[in-house]
Amino acid sequence: MNCSVCGAPAQVEVRRRNQAFCAEHYRAWFVNETRRNIKRHRMIRPGDRILVAVSGGKDSLVLWDTLARLGHAATGFHIQLGIGDYSQRALEATRAFAAARGLELIVVDVRQSFGLTIPQLAQATGRAACSGCGLSKRYLMNRVAEEEGFNVVATGHNLDDEAATLLGNVSHWQLDALVRQGPMLEGREGLARRIKPLYTFTEREVAAYAFLAGIAYQHEECPHAEGAKSLLYKDVLGRLETRMPGTKQVFLEQYLKKVQPVLKEGLAEGEVELRRCERCGQVTTGAVCAHCKLWDRAYARAKKRRLLPEDRGFDPRPKVDRLKPANEA
Amino acid sequence: MNCSVCGAPAQVEVRRRNQAFCAEHYRAWFVNETRRNIKRHRMIRPGDRILVAVSGGKDSLVLWDTLARLGHAATGFHIQLGIGDYSQRALEATRAFAAARGLELIVVDVRQSFGLTIPQLAQATGRAACSGCGLSKRYLMNRVAEEEGFNVVATGHNLDDEAATLLGNVSHWQLDALVRQGPMLEGREGLARRIKPLYTFTEREVAAYAFLAGIAYQHEECPHAEGAKSLLYKDVLGRLETRMPGTKQVFLEQYLKKVQPVLKEGLAEGEVELRRCERCGQVTTGAVCAHCKLWDRAYARAKKRRLLPEDRGFDPRPKVDRLKPANEA
Repeated sequence: MNCSVCGAPAQVEVRRRNQAFCAEHYRAWFVNETRRNIKRHRMIRPGDRILVAVSGGKDSLVLWDTLARLGHAATGFHIQLGIGDYSQRALEATRAFAAARGLELIVVDVRQSFGLTIPQLAQATGRAACSGCGLSKRYLMNRVAEEEGFNVVATGHNLDDEAATLLGNVSHWQLDALVRQGPMLEGREGLARRIKPLYTFTEREVAAYAFLAGIAYQHEECPHAEGAKSLLYKDVLGRLETRMPGTKQVFLEQYLKKVQPVLKEGLAEGEVELRRCERCGQVTTGAVCAHCKLWDRAYARAKKRRLLPEDRGFDPRPKVDRLKPANEA
Repeated sequence: MNCSVCGAPAQVEVRRRNQAFCAEHYRAWFVNETRRNIKRHRMIRPGDRILVAVSGGKDSLVLWDTLARLGHAATGFHIQLGIGDYSQRALEATRAFAAARGLELIVVDVRQSFGLTIPQLAQATGRAACSGCGLSKRYLMNRVAEEEGFNVVATGHNLDDEAATLLGNVSHWQLDALVRQGPMLEGREGLARRIKPLYTFTEREVAAYAFLAGIAYQHEECPHAEGAKSLLYKDVLGRLETRMPGTKQVFLEQYLKKVQPVLKEGLAEGEVELRRCERCGQVTTGAVCAHCKLWDRAYARAKKRRLLPEDRGFDPRPKVDRLKPANEA
């Protein structure tokens, strides 16, 4: 098989498009598709300041790389979760990527900021690690964006991620999530715009780009991911895809195009009113936000078990470490 | 575990309801639930004449049994598909059931009526057997209902069937099917009302009723079912159910309750205009109905292969065999 552009031997086949590319033209195709995604949904607008959420895995590093190639200066934001060696290697991959390309990187260490790692938080609250982890990530992304002057948060979600989320939302008909899910969620006072420029690429396509662009990323799965529902949904979608190629893409795209507008229209209940959390000042719907409640609960239980000193109170302000690129430092 | 009603040792556990029953009270619960389903959706109304589609499998025989117990006189309708011994044993199970209970049964033999069995039809058209089979069943159910004076067609679809159909419709967002799917589809001129009184029972619950009520049914799967997409959807739903018990029920019920009304409202395009097929007189949207088109195509190809004599034209009138119960004959 030969490259659809130049006729040289192909290195990557994009089956759902009936195309194949050499390394150079695959990278060009990938970057160009990302540009089209951004344009189609007006993800990025003049004057935007972009924070890109970077775990150190392939999706987020590929996103950061692609944004840079498209001329969108974006500051990386990495959260050090404290999940043993896994988190340590993720931070190293992120730092190395930023340093090699002279990109600005912001790091928040959960334990240094709030006193407990994500596994300790899970232990203290008796809830699954993933639930506290997801909440902490959303909170920190939004808070750091606001305090550091970014109005857009970009994440590396790919087609497999988005289709799995959709299947999860559909299987129990989570209407609020179904209405909000999408490649671009408009910002509001105190809430950054959320964008997912890679949402049309399969996981395999993102991995191929990472490989051909020579991006060194963290390959390990999070040790807590085993048994996560998102993996079950991905497995189930993989079975449908094997039997009916194109299912993932049709499932997500047709939902966004044909069904979500009808649901939005039919379920319109006006925007939820937001206020500022009495404890931390971040936007929320109640008096105290879910993040403050979670950590207050965790502190109470951690003190009983003597994991934290009796006089330590929860301080919701993250310790932000802003690393300027070496050539500006 | 003991019966929730009488405290005797339980024979069946209905996990999703947290209930268990002895044989007698399980049958009573099952019949009563069916009554509630019928009432909730106004499936059956005074003066209705009911035709129950009976394959000879557990679902349809249980439905026929249950309708009789609820005092709804229903005539059985069996289609002899001509799928070898499988179809022969299905007809025998159906006949034996009707004879033992003195129920009226209508039988149409596809080959005797139209000249080819379902496998021969598939061979002649080069399409999967399931597609011609489904079309023939829908056509015959509706036509025989109209010509024999029935305004309601009841089918034995259970929760597993309906959830699998919903997943199929959702995975490719078949909006017309999504809007129509449900336990009761109102009749129109030339189209009988379609009802599915067992749509809330899992396959396992229907099988338990069949066992406890001593119903001898055809146990074999159709030999053409292997590889059917409906089985793939059932497999996938089974995986979600194992991990998250109750998923199938929530998936179907919440769809019907919360989502379908919004889609119906938002996609309202008025009823499709129906006319009578020029060839057979049955209602259809075009000039000639899909059933006549399929058989005309099959005849043309079957003649080329000398499966049918050159001068044989397709006659769309089914040969209806109406067997009165022995005690009335």
